[in-house]
Amino acid sequence: MDSDTHEALMRATYRALCRHGYAAVTMQKIADESDKCKGTLHYHYESKQDLLESFLAYLRDGFVERVAVDDDLPPAERLRALVDVVLSPPERRHQAEFQTAILEIKAQAPYTEGYRDLLADIDGHVHRSVADVVSEGVETGAFRSDADPDDVADFVVTILNGAHARHVVEGDLPEHTKRHLWEYLERSLGLDRGVPAE
Amino acid sequence: MDSDTHEALMRATYRALCRHGYAAVTMQKIADESDKCKGTLHYHYESKQDLLESFLAYLRDGFVERVAVDDDLPPAERLRALVDVVLSPPERRHQAEFQTAILEIKAQAPYTEGYRDLLADIDGHVHRSVADVVSEGVETGAFRSDADPDDVADFVVTILNGAHARHVVEGDLPEHTKRHLWEYLERSLGLDRGVPAE
Repeated sequence: MDSDTHEALMRATYRALCRHGYAAVTMQKIADESDKCKGTLHYHYESKQDLLESFLAYLRDGFVERVAVDDDLPPAERLRALVDVVLSPPERRHQAEFQTAILEIKAQAPYTEGYRDLLADIDGHVHRSVADVVSEGVETGAFRSDADPDDVADFVVTILNGAHARHVVEGDLPEHTKRHLWEYLERSLGLDRGVPAE
Repeated sequence: MDSDTHEALMRATYRALCRHGYAAVTMQKIADESDKCKGTLHYHYESKQDLLESFLAYLRDGFVERVAVDDDLPPAERLRALVDVVLSPPERRHQAEFQTAILEIKAQAPYTEGYRDLLADIDGHVHRSVADVVSEGVETGAFRSDADPDDVADFVVTILNGAHARHVVEGDLPEHTKRHLWEYLERSLGLDRGVPAE
């Protein structure tokens, strides 16, 4: 499949998920959102699950690109930029509907290895990005020497998962989460005396 | 409906949700898990949604009972007991399947006001319980005077939501969450010098 077709199908999948939700979306409904016919979709993808796995991989790749923070920044600034990016989803049409569909897919993860692996990839990327910055900050003396990069990264992944679920249930990204997360990081890393909070 | 019938239907709903998941569960499947016929269920509940709202209220009431921590304990011990309870779901058969069904219901919250309200009730109860203990600890001088009860409580609710979603996707309650949450509370409340971590 050429990259234009792939991009068009991914965008159609996004629109179909927003319109119908995960449970009700079908290959036909995804085709309806594109200029392709259902036969074309079936030529490239065996099933709805297969297409949605491709879509999750597409989301993961976009996410990896978005969270790539300038390596030259000092650790505290890199971490700050990372928190800003992961807690500010891109402005997209139907963001709330989309986050709901992703939560539906999370609830399917126990039954679908492909979803589970791709969701683990996304969380794993956040984990590594945070752990890398924390390690660097500890090594250079910018952060507390007793900060454990994996502990901090694991907690951040939990917090992002929680912000996502609350976003869906409450309808808004909980507004205080970014501030709370940053305060937690400042205390854990000993920044509360050196780096201004805002 | 007498309380035995109600309890029997709630237990049947639990088993049916674990066996079939939220999307696939029906009044018939719930009846199949009980000694009642489908007609009896329809006599008491208009729809699957109506029955599941009653089930969420039943879960909420059980949860409120479980997290009722001895008021006479000092604030740090009450908080510790609260963290233990909320991050140690009761040993139940099919706990993983059940948590998955609850995540499916969270993903339905945007479309179903009854679910949204009941889920908000549960989170609201955690929020108030944490905020009350923190307030008391600040007033008595057991906690840092600059700790904000609502900020701490809101963050705890986010962390519990995150632990739930990760439990479903990864198959295990993330083992470090309880320790990380407690370390966060110790730092936020200034316990890290006074109260042993374990």
